[in-house]
Amino acid sequence: MKRTIFIISDGTGLTAQALGHSLLTQFPHITFEYITLPYIDSVEKVTQVIKQINQVSSQEKNHPIVFTTLIQTEIRKALEASAGIIIDFFAPFIPMLEKEFQASSSPKIGQTHGLINYETYKTRIDAVNYALNCDDGIGQTHYDQADLILLGVSRSGKTPTCLYLAIEFGIFPANYPLTEEFFSQKNLPKILEQYQHKLFGLMIDEFRLHQIRSERKKDSQYASLLTCQQELKTTRAFFNRENIPYIDTTSRSIEEIATSIISIIGIKRRGF
Amino acid sequence: MKRTIFIISDGTGLTAQALGHSLLTQFPHITFEYITLPYIDSVEKVTQVIKQINQVSSQEKNHPIVFTTLIQTEIRKALEASAGIIIDFFAPFIPMLEKEFQASSSPKIGQTHGLINYETYKTRIDAVNYALNCDDGIGQTHYDQADLILLGVSRSGKTPTCLYLAIEFGIFPANYPLTEEFFSQKNLPKILEQYQHKLFGLMIDEFRLHQIRSERKKDSQYASLLTCQQELKTTRAFFNRENIPYIDTTSRSIEEIATSIISIIGIKRRGF
Repeated sequence: MKRTIFIISDGTGLTAQALGHSLLTQFPHITFEYITLPYIDSVEKVTQVIKQINQVSSQEKNHPIVFTTLIQTEIRKALEASAGIIIDFFAPFIPMLEKEFQASSSPKIGQTHGLINYETYKTRIDAVNYALNCDDGIGQTHYDQADLILLGVSRSGKTPTCLYLAIEFGIFPANYPLTEEFFSQKNLPKILEQYQHKLFGLMIDEFRLHQIRSERKKDSQYASLLTCQQELKTTRAFFNRENIPYIDTTSRSIEEIATSIISIIGIKRRGF
Repeated sequence: MKRTIFIISDGTGLTAQALGHSLLTQFPHITFEYITLPYIDSVEKVTQVIKQINQVSSQEKNHPIVFTTLIQTEIRKALEASAGIIIDFFAPFIPMLEKEFQASSSPKIGQTHGLINYETYKTRIDAVNYALNCDDGIGQTHYDQADLILLGVSRSGKTPTCLYLAIEFGIFPANYPLTEEFFSQKNLPKILEQYQHKLFGLMIDEFRLHQIRSERKKDSQYASLLTCQQELKTTRAFFNRENIPYIDTTSRSIEEIATSIISIIGIKRRGF
């Protein structure tokens, strides 16, 4: 079975998309085709949207599911004229919160992923620049500023994890690669000694690592299963000996790796 | 007024956090303190969580709001014993979907931001590597693969936008800086001619640009208001002349810039 899903928002639509997708993953036997329509912030735009929903409805002979986070009552009401089944993620919860807070809500569009506070927002941009400047062992003179320093073998997922932590959470992440120099010494690199409390390790399955490295440098010693096994064995022993917390990235998404790390270390995300 | 908000999930908690934060931005006069507890996937863990909620409740003499996306009924039920006001973002919508799809849901934890399909997921990692390899004018031999090529003056927001597009949407973005070479010629750079359909421009307010550049190179010609004004004037004229679509990044977050771009160009996000 295939179903068309509309994601409609007066902002980015990212929240409606996230929750809508969450709910639909509970129906694994259905294939979903998403149509995301952000910035629907006028009745004129809704009129166009309704046409599109009704067209899909008559083509597919069903009622398309429409996930929305619409702040403006006027726009939400207008949408009800469509042939879609409207599931609004905002309206049901606002009254409960108003009651509990004994306060009226102030409907404002684009608050969720919008640029509300420039200073908070700037933290995220600074964090991205920091992550780029302290990627892969560079920028060691800036480690004082780091919220955490990720360690791991080549291709264990350090860079994407750092970029995600910076962009989404405004966290300042550095990462330090465990390379030949480390594997000849097998000790905590000198530069990291004073930052032991900031260290966090990434591990990965040896076969997955072999696969990823082979895509980059086929049949190299670097990519060989034996090299991967040896590096990972040494790395794990090193993390355990130095009491460096670590997680395995093999079956985890960037989101899972990042949220696990901040939960384990106990750092809070900055800014939204 | 200050209120403590719990975000509780058996997965990353990112969806509950996004929607919870959305709802609370409608109450701008209240200060919210967030406590995010991801991976609450056993009754033992819920027991600890309940203690924490009840402690906050007796300290603050109110009922903390608890936003959840809990898949397992057992865990959701257990949480009801707490002093918090539980607002679950999952339970209310599942029956509507089951009815419409005429199918039962298959409750599975960690589907939202989890690593469900390795191939889809790998696209996002490949996209991050692509963005890094084609940042700031490098990697021009790989422009064939680009989904889009961002153009803009130095510090207009190209790099964070590209990284966000890659990490969140699995889109392959390149970016090309408009620097002195361009400003002496004022024409479409040769290398970009064959990719005209992929070009997208970023603009920024001249005062904001002056401010951002001054933070990096105070009192330089590069950062001077005059330079910023001249560069932006030339850039805008160039975008208009070449019919390159563009948006202003000044009062937009990375999320807004990224979602606007893909909506305008008409690219779909890949993978979740």
